[in-house]
Amino acid sequence: MQRSPELQSFITQILAEDIGRGDITSNAIIPPDATMHAAIVAREALMLSGLNLAMMMLTIADESLEVACQVSDGQMIPAGSTIMQLKGSARTLLALERTLLNVLQHLSGIATLTARYVAAVDGLSVRIVDTRKTAPGLRELQKYAVRCGGGYNHRMGLDDGVLIKDNHIAIVGSIAQAVSQARAATPQLIKIEVECDTVDQVREAVAAKADIILLDNMDIESLKHSAALCKAAHIASEASGGITLANVRAVAETGVDTIAIGALTHSAPAVDIALDVIS
Amino acid sequence: MQRSPELQSFITQILAEDIGRGDITSNAIIPPDATMHAAIVAREALMLSGLNLAMMMLTIADESLEVACQVSDGQMIPAGSTIMQLKGSARTLLALERTLLNVLQHLSGIATLTARYVAAVDGLSVRIVDTRKTAPGLRELQKYAVRCGGGYNHRMGLDDGVLIKDNHIAIVGSIAQAVSQARAATPQLIKIEVECDTVDQVREAVAAKADIILLDNMDIESLKHSAALCKAAHIASEASGGITLANVRAVAETGVDTIAIGALTHSAPAVDIALDVIS
Amino acid sequence: MQRSPELQSFITQILAEDIGRGDITSNAIIPPDATMHAAIVAREALMLSGLNLAMMMLTIADESLEVACQVSDGQMIPAGSTIMQLKGSARTLLALERTLLNVLQHLSGIATLTARYVAAVDGLSVRIVDTRKTAPGLRELQKYAVRCGGGYNHRMGLDDGVLIKDNHIAIVGSIAQAVSQARAATPQLIKIEVECDTVDQVREAVAAKADIILLDNMDIESLKHSAALCKAAHIASEASGGITLANVRAVAETGVDTIAIGALTHSAPAVDIALDVIS
Amino acid sequence: MQRSPELQSFITQILAEDIGRGDITSNAIIPPDATMHAAIVAREALMLSGLNLAMMMLTIADESLEVACQVSDGQMIPAGSTIMQLKGSARTLLALERTLLNVLQHLSGIATLTARYVAAVDGLSVRIVDTRKTAPGLRELQKYAVRCGGGYNHRMGLDDGVLIKDNHIAIVGSIAQAVSQARAATPQLIKIEVECDTVDQVREAVAAKADIILLDNMDIESLKHSAALCKAAHIASEASGGITLANVRAVAETGVDTIAIGALTHSAPAVDIALDVIS
Amino acid sequence: MQRSPELQSFITQILAEDIGRGDITSNAIIPPDATMHAAIVAREALMLSGLNLAMMMLTIADESLEVACQVSDGQMIPAGSTIMQLKGSARTLLALERTLLNVLQHLSGIATLTARYVAAVDGLSVRIVDTRKTAPGLRELQKYAVRCGGGYNHRMGLDDGVLIKDNHIAIVGSIAQAVSQARAATPQLIKIEVECDTVDQVREAVAAKADIILLDNMDIESLKHSAALCKAAHIASEASGGITLANVRAVAETGVDTIAIGALTHSAPAVDIALDVIS
Amino acid sequence: MQRSPELQSFITQILAEDIGRGDITSNAIIPPDATMHAAIVAREALMLSGLNLAMMMLTIADESLEVACQVSDGQMIPAGSTIMQLKGSARTLLALERTLLNVLQHLSGIATLTARYVAAVDGLSVRIVDTRKTAPGLRELQKYAVRCGGGYNHRMGLDDGVLIKDNHIAIVGSIAQAVSQARAATPQLIKIEVECDTVDQVREAVAAKADIILLDNMDIESLKHSAALCKAAHIASEASGGITLANVRAVAETGVDTIAIGALTHSAPAVDIALDVIS
Repeated sequence: MQRSPELQSFITQILAEDIGRGDITSNAIIPPDATMHAAIVAREALMLSGLNLAMMMLTIADESLEVACQVSDGQMIPAGSTIMQLKGSARTLLALERTLLNVLQHLSGIATLTARYVAAVDGLSVRIVDTRKTAPGLRELQKYAVRCGGGYNHRMGLDDGVLIKDNHIAIVGSIAQAVSQARAATPQLIKIEVECDTVDQVREAVAAKADIILLDNMDIESLKHSAALCKAAHIASEASGGITLANVRAVAETGVDTIAIGALTHSAPAVDIALDVIS
Repeated sequence: MQRSPELQSFITQILAEDIGRGDITSNAIIPPDATMHAAIVAREALMLSGLNLAMMMLTIADESLEVACQVSDGQMIPAGSTIMQLKGSARTLLALERTLLNVLQHLSGIATLTARYVAAVDGLSVRIVDTRKTAPGLRELQKYAVRCGGGYNHRMGLDDGVLIKDNHIAIVGSIAQAVSQARAATPQLIKIEVECDTVDQVREAVAAKADIILLDNMDIESLKHSAALCKAAHIASEASGGITLANVRAVAETGVDTIAIGALTHSAPAVDIALDVIS
Repeated sequence: MQRSPELQSFITQILAEDIGRGDITSNAIIPPDATMHAAIVAREALMLSGLNLAMMMLTIADESLEVACQVSDGQMIPAGSTIMQLKGSARTLLALERTLLNVLQHLSGIATLTARYVAAVDGLSVRIVDTRKTAPGLRELQKYAVRCGGGYNHRMGLDDGVLIKDNHIAIVGSIAQAVSQARAATPQLIKIEVECDTVDQVREAVAAKADIILLDNMDIESLKHSAALCKAAHIASEASGGITLANVRAVAETGVDTIAIGALTHSAPAVDIALDVIS
Repeated sequence: MQRSPELQSFITQILAEDIGRGDITSNAIIPPDATMHAAIVAREALMLSGLNLAMMMLTIADESLEVACQVSDGQMIPAGSTIMQLKGSARTLLALERTLLNVLQHLSGIATLTARYVAAVDGLSVRIVDTRKTAPGLRELQKYAVRCGGGYNHRMGLDDGVLIKDNHIAIVGSIAQAVSQARAATPQLIKIEVECDTVDQVREAVAAKADIILLDNMDIESLKHSAALCKAAHIASEASGGITLANVRAVAETGVDTIAIGALTHSAPAVDIALDVIS
Repeated sequence: MQRSPELQSFITQILAEDIGRGDITSNAIIPPDATMHAAIVAREALMLSGLNLAMMMLTIADESLEVACQVSDGQMIPAGSTIMQLKGSARTLLALERTLLNVLQHLSGIATLTARYVAAVDGLSVRIVDTRKTAPGLRELQKYAVRCGGGYNHRMGLDDGVLIKDNHIAIVGSIAQAVSQARAATPQLIKIEVECDTVDQVREAVAAKADIILLDNMDIESLKHSAALCKAAHIASEASGGITLANVRAVAETGVDTIAIGALTHSAPAVDIALDVIS
Repeated sequence: MQRSPELQSFITQILAEDIGRGDITSNAIIPPDATMHAAIVAREALMLSGLNLAMMMLTIADESLEVACQVSDGQMIPAGSTIMQLKGSARTLLALERTLLNVLQHLSGIATLTARYVAAVDGLSVRIVDTRKTAPGLRELQKYAVRCGGGYNHRMGLDDGVLIKDNHIAIVGSIAQAVSQARAATPQLIKIEVECDTVDQVREAVAAKADIILLDNMDIESLKHSAALCKAAHIASEASGGITLANVRAVAETGVDTIAIGALTHSAPAVDIALDVIS
């Protein structure tokens, strides 16, 4: 996650979201020159994500803050770990506290859940990937958190990959027709994936020379069968739909190359992170 | 939720987030004049939120779409309910599908969780309120969803309420001093709330004439005691910290006026909503 | 006034407003490496406001400028005082001159007028407050200037305080009904103020347990009577309408807690401030 | 004043400035479907300005509002005149009321003051013009209001006219040198004006073939003398500095072509305009 | 080209770029209610592009304009053809004229040049593609114009395709290593292209299982040899560097699948399009 | 070209245009701490423009880059010249490469073409000026490049000069009427130019006391005649229409003061500039 212009603008927006017309509590009570020394601490074991963004936020808000940290995004840390130490204007730190914590809690929540799925398929040759089921406005950050957790990203949006779904096929008439039209119109660097619900559809997609086949909501037997058909045709296969921590290993063992999980981004609970004052 | 300029700009941002440089799948496959008739359907029972926003998104994206809906935000709907019917350009509807669903799933997820907490304290005179622990950039929408679920909002930001916390008190020296400085500087329409961890602090805050007292992470006995002290002084009391669906009723029965729950916004799982093609 | 993202964006806008596509005079005449030493000077006695903002503007425009100043916002300075000294690129200083002066003249004009009202009620326990009658786009700055002048702010906008006015009451039916509905819906940290034109209405608002009562356009006798009714009920009272430097002390002596004056922000004349070249 | 993209964005900003996160009073009290019929009325005689902008604001905020008006910008209207009638959602009208009035009061205040200056030089062949001494962020609107009042605009910014001032001359060395450099570098459609404090400087500027000469802070005799020198050389002349309603006619009678008055924009008091509910 | 929020914002920017603070010529001369009937006419034969964008611009600027057109983007039209007819406010049309023509001239210039390259390889199975050598800020529009001219797009940016160039290989050490790292990190829907300058490098890239091989600045013999190697390995090949209308057919006949031409976007001259008044 | 807020925002836009959601090639292959030393080199002789902008872009993107350059905008440099040397993060430099080169190639292309026109009229007292026929969104930069090439700018937009064209005259009725209305309404610092197609029209415009007369699409004889008429009346003259490198000297010799050439900005081909890795 590099400090792009768009990220900077996002940071200024989320700071403004909380601070609004000013922190009326601290402005009333805390002397303008009071300083504070504080630590941001993990209250539970977690896979860290968002530290990068938090650092940028601190720089953007007040370049004079002293920030020290010994961990980094994508690192598993035990409960009680210090994530960063902060020294500087008390008014500034109190005004930033909630937004900093919200970012860290949210992204580390996603990274931690992802890491659990990744651990569940440990040793198998399969990628855990996210979906486009993200919270509105937070896609790039959430997908970054997935990578921190050891997962991979699927499409970033509708513009960087072709995924032909049931609705497309219904309108065009057949998988063969859809793939052939997509191939004719699509820039050469983009692959074409086709969503299939049945093994018969998988056969059609294989015949149509799709680059990847998405096996949606199939049972374990059908997944196995489909994965084998794909492998024989040198086509990648991906499972999606109804996958949980309980069944993800079984799905992985069917031989699919990739497993897509919407919950990574749409339902990961926040992890518990707090700011403690040192002095 | 009215169509404010800021909401419009948020909508254009989240559409751009998914569509990017264009929906290369539909643009390659779907004829520009193809039309589609589809329904957005609740796959589980849920408290609806985000319909309002979804309607604005549809208008902003394409004024020629026909949209019909018979439910509204803040309404509990059973699994299988149709949330809205849509008719119009297939390319447009396919490009909007994911963003529409993401909005509805996320906000209805929060409303549904809130409604569960509200139901759990049914019959008691207590408000379920949210916190500032929101996903970055989504505060106003998430707090709207809390209201849809029957909850109330706490502060919208640092600028529309005074909440004196432990860190403030540590710097200023005493609750009395903090309240008195806040009273002197704060606009007259804003109340002053003080966070207390112990019954002794509650006594100090009562003496300092706080308008509201936040009882943070107290056990049931301390809550009862503190709530009684507040009531006697005609001061409102609020409980927060470690509250779950399992213990919320017990907390409510201590006599506090308000119960604040961060999980409403930071950890509500998405509910399952999908788009089905009718023709 | 802290350097928030929104303030930065305002500053870049007002710089662009004057500089447009470039300062064609200086660009044609002044060598790019010419330097200048200048002072910004008060041509009349004034209450200073906007220095803070001017400093940010200088930093944003050109970090290499040397800026020195020995006064600060909220300070009364005599005619002839140097507000700040500036050294740096002549092209830059000439391009910034007008915008810097416009900011200082406008905000110090408001602070100076406010200070006159505050002086007029010297010794009485009353707050001089502003209103929402501000120049479009300048509310936060103008309200900051009021604070520099020793005044207090009323609501910042429609979102951080409840003020029930005649039009609301007309639609709802009664003061009692309006207050009760507002109480039910409003976040707990927000107080409820009711506008009254007559002593009878004041009685109703007292009975309805408003938090504050606004006494609008009342004569001195009615103000006295109403202020007494409020005091007896431990409710704050505020006078507004037709208040001038000539009558503000008489109004204050009626016992109201607050006096609201629209002219502070909508009609304060600019004070005279200029930039003099030293070398 | 046409509805440019920049004007639209300004309108959305000033609406957001007042409404913020929502009008919590009306949202709590007024039923969503309540309607209102109201009139905006001039409480004093005034030269109207801002009606145009107010109409755009109404369209942008809510296209379903019914708006009727029989007056227009640049028209002198007596006390008690109805400026516009409004019918529609009570919540919307109450939320817009203050911002609408602020715009009309501010711009009509400038137009009314300008009209007084214009009336004071009635019958003489002279233009009343504004300056760049405008409130930050409001230059184009304030200069529009000056035109409504019968005045003319001077430069809109540093980029659409060359004005060589004392500081420029000091750096370059002489008026002759400054004019010659400016002539060489400036696009052909832009004239060159030179500020002079003395009659001697006027002679230099005439010799340098300036297009316009600004006579700054001169007494009546010097103005007369300078205006005559300019006229003889077919060069336009402009007076500025210390001009009031009391002396503007005397200044005009010296024969200058233009009189520049900063107070038109930096110190015009608001006029009194209110919204009355009809039903 | 659909009317995305980003496109709308681009249109408002380019309108503001020309109109600035207002069209002072028409505002001074043309009565506000004057109307005009005009035609936009091709002064030379051209491949049309930008009509779509011009239509959006007209709608955004003034919904009351009547616009008629019988041609469309991607259509070759002879000299003298009417591109569109316009009726409406004379002030509006005169203010839009230059920006409309600039858009049409620029994009049709690119489409026309592209069409010449496409015609030059008529009958051969090869795609003419653009590059990222676009004018700053105009990439999406210029790449749209290439499609109008019958060309195809290469990557839209650094984010939707992997292209490993000489500088990457130098840092990583070998083509094999670069491809293998890219394969491990890249989302599954994205292909991997490798730039090669020599036939030996092509062999390495084939061995590394690149998806596409870019043959940069090779002579005709090397292109033939490399294209054959690629074909044998079922890998796509692309030629780039030094390709002109004079040699493009010879390059195409070497058997490459794609020919990339920077000049399509960085050096296409504008075509001649004008606005004629009809009445 | 100074670093204005608007220029900064343009730079962030064009960086985002290429980088999008991230440079997936370098992020996959290049270690985050790899450094690079590179030179930007002119592959052909050219008049440099855009270096200024490129420097700002580098600072905005990454303040830690080391940048050295010994040439400057507006300087003619031979083929093979090093334009700048760059040291720093390899990932950053590879991500910036294309956008840097696009800016330099585009602007230097315009400056180089302008310099050819300027050279062609060497020794004659005439200005080569640009027009408003610029690529959408790039006007200020393209007009800067014209100045780098030794040309002058005509109007920047519709707001900083009056140019009365045939369509204006047709609506108003006569040149005399148009000039007189423009004179009455236009700020005093703005000149009035009239476009004429025939010598008769030139006579009318002279009689109407235009400040400048634009001689559009006239043959050499008419230009001579018209230029003489203008000179006699102390009015500036400008030629436009159909001017090429082949005929520009003949046009200049007719005695016009200015020659306007649209091709400078709408049809200048890019010059060849590349980035070479040093180590």
